[in-house]
Formats: sequence, C-alpha cells, structure tokens
Amino acid sequence: MRFLAVLLCALPLFAADQKVVLRELTDLLAIPNLADDTANITRNAETIKTMMERRGITTRLLSLDGAPPIVVGDLKAAGSTRTLAFYAHYDGQPVDPAQWKSAPWTPVMRDANGNDVDWKNAATLDPEWRLYARSASDDKAPIVAMLAALDSLRARNVKPRVNLRFVFEGEEEAGSPHLAAYIAKYPDVLRPDAWIICDGPVHQSRRAQLAFGARGVLSLDLVVYGPVRALHDGHYGNWVPNPIVALTHLLASMRDENGRILIDGFYDDIVPASPAEKAAIAAMPPVEADLRREFQIARTEGESLNERILLPALNVSGIQSGGVGDKASNTLQTSARAAIDFRLVPAQTPESVKALVERHLVARGYKIVRDDPGAATRMANEKIVRVRWGSGYPPARTPLDHPLSNEIAALMKRAGHEPVRLPTMGGSVPIYLFQQPGNTPTITLPIVNHDNNQHAANENIRLQNLWDGIEIFAVLFENLEK
Amino acid sequence: MRFLAVLLCALPLFAADQKVVLRELTDLLAIPNLADDTANITRNAETIKTMMERRGITTRLLSLDGAPPIVVGDLKAAGSTRTLAFYAHYDGQPVDPAQWKSAPWTPVMRDANGNDVDWKNAATLDPEWRLYARSASDDKAPIVAMLAALDSLRARNVKPRVNLRFVFEGEEEAGSPHLAAYIAKYPDVLRPDAWIICDGPVHQSRRAQLAFGARGVLSLDLVVYGPVRALHDGHYGNWVPNPIVALTHLLASMRDENGRILIDGFYDDIVPASPAEKAAIAAMPPVEADLRREFQIARTEGESLNERILLPALNVSGIQSGGVGDKASNTLQTSARAAIDFRLVPAQTPESVKALVERHLVARGYKIVRDDPGAATRMANEKIVRVRWGSGYPPARTPLDHPLSNEIAALMKRAGHEPVRLPTMGGSVPIYLFQQPGNTPTITLPIVNHDNNQHAANENIRLQNLWDGIEIFAVLFENLEK
Repeated sequence: MRFLAVLLCALPLFAADQKVVLRELTDLLAIPNLADDTANITRNAETIKTMMERRGITTRLLSLDGAPPIVVGDLKAAGSTRTLAFYAHYDGQPVDPAQWKSAPWTPVMRDANGNDVDWKNAATLDPEWRLYARSASDDKAPIVAMLAALDSLRARNVKPRVNLRFVFEGEEEAGSPHLAAYIAKYPDVLRPDAWIICDGPVHQSRRAQLAFGARGVLSLDLVVYGPVRALHDGHYGNWVPNPIVALTHLLASMRDENGRILIDGFYDDIVPASPAEKAAIAAMPPVEADLRREFQIARTEGESLNERILLPALNVSGIQSGGVGDKASNTLQTSARAAIDFRLVPAQTPESVKALVERHLVARGYKIVRDDPGAATRMANEKIVRVRWGSGYPPARTPLDHPLSNEIAALMKRAGHEPVRLPTMGGSVPIYLFQQPGNTPTITLPIVNHDNNQHAANENIRLQNLWDGIEIFAVLFENLEK
Repeated sequence: MRFLAVLLCALPLFAADQKVVLRELTDLLAIPNLADDTANITRNAETIKTMMERRGITTRLLSLDGAPPIVVGDLKAAGSTRTLAFYAHYDGQPVDPAQWKSAPWTPVMRDANGNDVDWKNAATLDPEWRLYARSASDDKAPIVAMLAALDSLRARNVKPRVNLRFVFEGEEEAGSPHLAAYIAKYPDVLRPDAWIICDGPVHQSRRAQLAFGARGVLSLDLVVYGPVRALHDGHYGNWVPNPIVALTHLLASMRDENGRILIDGFYDDIVPASPAEKAAIAAMPPVEADLRREFQIARTEGESLNERILLPALNVSGIQSGGVGDKASNTLQTSARAAIDFRLVPAQTPESVKALVERHLVARGYKIVRDDPGAATRMANEKIVRVRWGSGYPPARTPLDHPLSNEIAALMKRAGHEPVRLPTMGGSVPIYLFQQPGNTPTITLPIVNHDNNQHAANENIRLQNLWDGIEIFAVLFENLEK
C-alpha cells in the first residue's frame, strides 16, 4: 500500500492522498454490516484487523459467544504508562433499500446538487461532495480517519507519545447488548486510562464538537384500569370511572407543560451545573432560533436547549386507549396505557428515580401492581396502576475542566478546529459502561456532519468532515502527552 | 288465521295461544333485516303490513328515496280525537355469524341451560325459555306483542277508546338517518299527540320500566400539535413541547376524576331534577352494588347511577399518540388526539356546549383551527388545537307527572306490572325528533329482558318478557282514555 505523502495540520490533503483514504473507506463500506449478519460482520472485523496490521498496530479480535468481535489494536509508545482508547463501531443500522437512492452498501459519491460524481478520475475533490453508503458516517468514517491520521504521522516519521488503543465494536446499533460482558471478560483491555468515543455528529453549525457526557435513561410502561369490560359510555359515562381521564390526571400530576417534573424530590439528587459547564454553554453557537423554525414551534420549554438538557426530562412518548377519529366509539374503555422515558442527570440513578415515581403513584392513591389485576384486586382498590420498568442506565459526565478535557480541546483549537464543548448530550448512550467503576474520563469526539442522515436512508459523509477528522486525529495522536 | 281465545290481564296465555304468537314471531325473525339489504328489508315491511291488515288495521308504507319504508297502521276509535303512536323498528344490527351458536336468522328456542327445545311439540312452554335470533328482542318482539295484544282485545270483543297508530321504522340500527326527513314529509302521520317508544330492555331487576327521556349527545375530535416532524426525545425532550403532555393537561382541565366537568358555565343551563324525578329515582330498585361487582370497580363517580345520569357527562372514549408497550419508542410525537363525547341534559343543546368548550380552549391559550395547521400558523401560535365537532343532538325529557305518564304507569301497575320509572336514559336516542317542535310527550316502554344480548351475537327474547309485554300492551290498548 501507499502511505500518505504529507499531512500537516490544517493544511488540506492533496487529491492523491484523499483518494487513498476514499479507496479504503469505500472498500470498507462495501461490506454489509448488520450486527446480526454474522458472516458479513465478521468480514468487517477481519478487514479492519488487516487494515490495522498493515500499519503495524498489534491487533486482536476479542470474542464472546453470540456477539460480533471487538477489534482491538494497540500502538505502544516507549516510556508511556498512559493508555488512551479511541472507540468507534463498525456495525450499522438496518436499511430499507427501497428508500435509498442507490444500494446502501454500494458507495456512491455525489456533489452538493445530488448528482453522481466520478471521484476516482477527478482532478480535485470538492470538499462539499458527499459519499453515500450505510455507515459512511456512523461509524466507519472515524475508523478510516484514525488510520489515515496514523499514516500521516508515519509519513512524517512522527511517533505518538502516549499508548494508543483502538477499540471498534460490532453491535453498537443493536444496543451494545454484550458491551458490559466484554468489559467484564477483558478488563485489562477495556479499562484504559481514558476513552475517546468517536461517534455521532459535530455541531449543527459545522464546528467541531466535544461532548462530555450523556443523560441516563429509564423507560416506564403505565396502565390504569377502568371497568373489566368495555361499557356504553352513555349509560355509564359519569358513574363508572374513566381510565383515560384517570391517566390524563396522573400524567398531568407528574409533569407540567414547561417541562418541570412535579414528582416530589425529583430534583433533590441533581448536581448543579459547574462554572465550566455554564461557561461552555454560554460560549456555544446559538441554534435555538433555527431549530424553532425547523420544527415549526412557536414556543419552547425553556430558552437554551443546552441548559435544558443539563436537567432531567420526563417524556411521554406514547399514549393509547380506545379509538380516535374514524375509529372513535362511545365506549368507556377498560384501560389506558402510556409510554414514558425519563432522562437522568448526575447523580440520579434508575433506582433513585424508580423509588420517587412509585412514591408519587402511591401518594396519588394508586395501588401498584406488576401484572393485570384480578377481580379481588380490582374490588379492593379504587385506583390501580400497572407499573413496568424497562431498561435503563445512569447518566455519565466527565468534567469540562478535567486535564484531559482541557488537553484535547486545546490541541483541537491549535489545529484550527476549536470545539464547541457540550457538557452533556440530551440523548442517552451507555457511557457509564466506559466510566465505571473508576470514573474513567470519557469524552465524545465526533467528526461527521450533523446532516449525515444517520440511521436513515441515504446516509452520507461530507468530504470536508472526513478531512477535518483526519487532521484532528493526527493532531491528537501526535501531541497527546504520555 | 286464529285469534287468541282469551287474554286476561296478569293471567298467563294458554300454550296454544302462546304458540300462535311464537309462530308469527319466528316467521318474522326468519327474514334477514339489515337496513341496507333493500330486498329483505322491504320483505320485512311487506310482511308486517300483511300481519297488520289481517287484523283490520289500515296500513300503508311511507317511502322516501334511499330509505327503508316506514310501516304505518291506524286503528281509529269512534269519537276519539287523540292519536297515540306506538313506535318500534323492524331492522336489526349487523351480525357476525361466526360468533353465533346458530344462524342469526334461523330462530332457535333454548331452555335456561342453553339446550335446544322443540317448542312446537311441547305441552307447555317454560317462561324461562328463550328464543334466539337477530332482532328477537331488538326490536321485532314488541311488534308481534302489540299485534297479539290487539288479538286479545278482539277475542274479547273489546275496542280501543283512543286512536292507535303503529309506526315501525326500518333503519333505526343504522342511526335513523332519514327519520327527520320522514317526519318533515309526513307531518300528519308522524306528529301524533304522543309517542310510546317500544324499544330497549326492561330494568335489570326484571321489573317493567318506563323511561321518560334520553341524554343528548355531541362528539368532539381534538388534536394538539408538537414539532412538525417526530424528534428524538432524548435530544429535544424537555425543550420542544410534548403534544401528549399538552393533551393530558388540556383534558385534565376539562373534567376531574369524579365526573365533574370543569368547563366554565357548563352547568348553568341545566334544569334541576323535579320532585317527581327525585321521587322516581328514590323508588328505583338499587342496582349499584351488583353493577360494581359486575364491572369489578371499587369506586364510582357518585353514589346513585340514576342521579348521575340526570347530569351531563364528558367522556373521553379514545386517546392516541405514538406507541406503547412493545411499540414504544423514545420519540417526541408530532401530535396527540382524543375522542370525546358529551352527554347533554335539558336545557343544554349541542350549540350551547360547543360555545362553552371553545371558550374553554381559548381561555387555556389555544388557537382553534379546523384543519391541520401550516407553518405560518404553527410559528404564530404557541398552542394549537384542531377542533372538529361530530354529530350531535339535544336531550329530551317528558315530565314524570305529565297526565299521560301517570296514566300509563297506573295502568301497568293495575295489570301487575308496576314500572320502574326512569327520568332519563343515560345513553342517547333521538327522542327530540319525536318531541319537536311541539314538545310532544314521548315515553319509552320497553318489554324485553335486559340480558337479551342486544346488538351482539345470540340475541334472544325470554318468553316471560314476551308474555308480559303482550299483557301490558293489551291493558294499554283497552284502557287508554280517548
């Protein structure tokens, strides 16, 4: 293979070097990568292992029954006792080919107008071109970008001063069901001194971004009960209690229309935002006005999106009972059901939230059951709610003023990619798995464009984001202290 | 044909006479009777016309384009200027034959244990036997019972003193879509001095019953809006307003958990219960404890069912947004929808209720729209609700102390069938059509058993109810004053 001739920070790659990178990326993107497609997911892992070994990285495949392998590569630095792990995943979301403009695992380059481009024979590559394929952004581009960054160091005969470990998972889009077991099985490998998670998109302003945490999550399935059989609501409509009415009152008692959670004690465990977090949020490019226009909403539940996601959330994501519209009938329903998910922030835990919510239900006069109630339970309790807790995990945060946080942000700034610093993502990713048990610093460093159609049809990577990503990784690999 | 030999009030029919009645009823039940089955519904009408003409009743079929005929029969009394109309309907609800023990239009007699009985060859007919067929109770039994009652008068050479008019509709179960037009077309025929509506079941205690009204009804379809596209509720969950949360607060603001409607002014138009209504309710056999057991509910929204249905109701019959249970996803939905029906009592009208509800929505900060809002409307209004009013009509009541009310109740009592007197039914039937414009007294006199599986599979008539019905009609036809 051919190494990149020259790569200097903040200088664009020459077209020839760019094509080397794109050739490696398109080859990798051509391998279907659903986590449950064992043959192909293993091909992906083997291919990445080969790509790493070509670069002199000591590479192995970690394995666990029934799980795709984790590709782990080590690049030791003489005299360093610090190991920084760079995480990405090589599996992708399921595809609906009918919704794609071209086959999901046949990479196609298109210009900003959506026209196909023959990039292999182009003299120069427009940085606004995009490469379309499943996982072009999520999450194969970071893998290829890291390896290209290593090539640039090698071309300049520069060696990292810190031990680098590359950890590439194969079932992140399936919910990382074996990640905890992998960490338990391979603690020496999967408990580095720090994690840099290379997943997700950069800021909507196209500026680079670092995220220092994620909210935890906890899902809840609630059912309240009416009569044991559906009744004519004219005959019985204001004598027999209506389960939909009960549910609306219960939900309204849990959360107001401004996002404030009304459950007693819900905010007691919350660690207030640090000065560094407040400063980072104040420094973020404002996105609120654009988002309001994009979502066509005239009001929000608070001014600053990023201040809001420092707080916990109670989201009602589904509610169902009876029929509406054409399906409406004058019926007193037997039950009403809601789907809720909580987003947690430090130091809330799924356990602490469960206790508060159940206390609230009891305080509202509800008998809590775990299965549909029988006649005796129904006759003995005026209000009954079936409570089923779903999966959940705690939030995670790494301080913005942690030395590694400052080190990475400073290096990115030096390379011309000063990051937007996000104290936490609003969504939930199981960063706590990387952090526990020793509160390992874990920083998310995304490189791909925010408008990459992640998880959807026509996923793509914008070339400028790929080139920027290579620069950022090269700066970090070269300059992170041992 | 053979007339009933003897029928004295409160004396059972002889078996031979009973079989004559049953033969006529089974013949009529053998004709399928869906309102939109034009050929068969016309056969029903023609058959009933023939049955009436055999009894010397002057009979005609009223007609209207696209509607089943109304069978009208007149039995004039010399010297009477008062015409009392007895209403029933000969059409029935749709059937799902798979759910029936025997074919819906093949009448079968069964004993109390559900075993088939050869009634034609039986020496005596057990009054607890039931005849199974679509419309056995709802509503062909009253038609046959009225004609059998006339036979008993004729057998005793007794003539009615009041003009009797029989009015048998053919599309009641389809919602009587042409009834208003029929009344408008045939005012001389369909505006008698009073109506006796022979439909529905007797009291759950098996006692005879008179009902003096019905609640009105008005349906409402509400949609509230969130972002224009579904969003990840982790990223945006407590910044972008949640439409399900908005809907729960809106519905909770409209009605409490004890059935009290919280819409300003909602009770202002209501005529308080009269002393006669209060006395009738106090005299009713209590059913509440049995119903609580049957419905398996530990509480109700008030003590007395019949006091409650003197009041209006706000029923939420359906609510829908997003998925629940296995279908739940962490999504901020774009809208949430509810189906509501109001039950109205005098002197509320659909128009008065609409105005109050819309005033409430506006007071809660909502912009009311009639169609899904566009971007400009969304951006200009913090809270938007789509309001679509469905069909509705006003309540109707005839005073319990109206002379006709007292006359009918006294005659029934004399015949050993003292009625439970229900000031209003909780459900809605368009009695206002019969009442308007002159507030014509309209009294509902049901004869069939309450457990007749009305509208469902295995509809049936209990024989004792049929014999009691014949007795009641005979007493009325003989004794109602001219």
